[in-house]
Order: sequence, then C-alpha cells, then structure tokens
Amino acid sequence: MEPTELGISGDCKITGQILARIGDKWSVFVIGSLAHRTMRFNELKRRIGGVSQRMLTLTLRGLERDGLVRRTVYPTIPPRVDYDLTPLGRTLVIPLRGIADWAGAHIDEVIASRTAYDSEADAAGEKRAA
Amino acid sequence: MEPTELGISGDCKITGQILARIGDKWSVFVIGSLAHRTMRFNELKRRIGGVSQRMLTLTLRGLERDGLVRRTVYPTIPPRVDYDLTPLGRTLVIPLRGIADWAGAHIDEVIASRTAYDSEADAAGEKRAA
Repeated sequence: MEPTELGISGDCKITGQILARIGDKWSVFVIGSLAHRTMRFNELKRRIGGVSQRMLTLTLRGLERDGLVRRTVYPTIPPRVDYDLTPLGRTLVIPLRGIADWAGAHIDEVIASRTAYDSEADAAGEKRAA
Repeated sequence: MEPTELGISGDCKITGQILARIGDKWSVFVIGSLAHRTMRFNELKRRIGGVSQRMLTLTLRGLERDGLVRRTVYPTIPPRVDYDLTPLGRTLVIPLRGIADWAGAHIDEVIASRTAYDSEADAAGEKRAA
C-alpha cells in the first residue's frame, strides 16, 4: 500500500497487528494502569473492572509477547507475579494518552452522532415499509 | 471502573467502542487518507490497498455513524459519492498520528520481541515433550 498522511506505510499486516494490540480496550486499560506502578494480577483485575480472568491473562500475554509488559515471578510460596511496563511499553504511554484524551473529550459528540444516525436510519426504514 | 492514569474513566463500554473504532486498522487508514483530501470510494479503495469492498463500506459506515466521516451524494448519473472528514474527524488526525508514528518507530522492536517470545515458548514446549 501507499503511505498515508498518518505516516503508515510498508508492512500493512504488521501495522494492523500493532494497531489491533494497542487499540484494544483491555490493552489500553492495562498500559494505563501500569503507567502508574508495578501491579500484581489481582490488583490489575480490580483496578480495571469488568475484565474476566481469562481476558486479562490473554491481554497480558499479548503485551508481554510484544515486549510492552514485563512479567516477573518471585519464587515465594505461593509464587508472586508482578507486572510492569518495559522501557518500550513506557514509550507508548504518551501517544495512548493522546487517544484516551480524545475519547474523553469527544465521547458526547460521538454518542450524539450515533443517535442521530440511527434515528435517520429508522425513519428511512419506516418510510420504505409504508 | 476507576480512572486510570491514561485518563480513561466513566463509561467503559462506550470508551471501549470508541477505541475499537479508532484503533481499527481500516479506520486508521481511512482517516489517514482523508486527512489529505476528499476522496471517492474507489480512490480510497485503491489508496488503502488490500481492503475488500465490503470491509471498506462497513468501515466508512461506522465512521459516518460516529460523526468522523461525511458522505456526500451528488445527483449525477451515475451518482457521485464523496467522502471527507468532518470537523470532529479532523480533531482525531493528530492523536492518531502519534500512534502511527509510534508503530512506525517501534515495529522492529515489537517483531523482535515476538520472535524471542515464540522461540522461548517453543523451547519450553520441547522441554516438556522430551
């Protein structure tokens, strides 16, 4: 594909995979939580809220695989497992904050637009049915 | 849920929907292309590359519903349909560029990390199998 004005070019498949990772809701919440400090699994789970055990496990594994999150196991009984951001993961905090700020600032406009769009679609449907 | 240090708080479901939209690969490519200028469907399709007719249609409809893209139909024969960014869509270009720049700058590190992670996982699997 051609480069776009957002500067995305080259390997579209990998770019897509990276966007899928960093645009994922749970990834954003995990990175947002770990931006503050190291956390254990259950702390993360409580802090994020609404995430299942399995989904949080998968999200953390994906972030670890991508080099964004580090998992440290301490050989205590029971074993203690800490999660924190790697240096690479830290570089993602500022661009992600830009997206999160945008979502926070414009959420009302997006919701209003959806409502208007759906009611127009409903009206068009009723017109066709009549 | 509690607010995180990325500033995400409040309605988790809606925030998730917004992240799903703006973190989607095709949405990013569409917004990146329209950041430059108004385009017709087939121009967008050629420019993005690798996107199916159906997927581009769905992506554009989602962006239109969210108030980010405007679709204008001119009553010519055949009808001409233009797509451009709304003022709201334009506000998303800079934060998205931050993410795209991050992906471009760090893609090699992410790929290297995945390769290392997968070969460790393979080695662990072989060890268990032996």
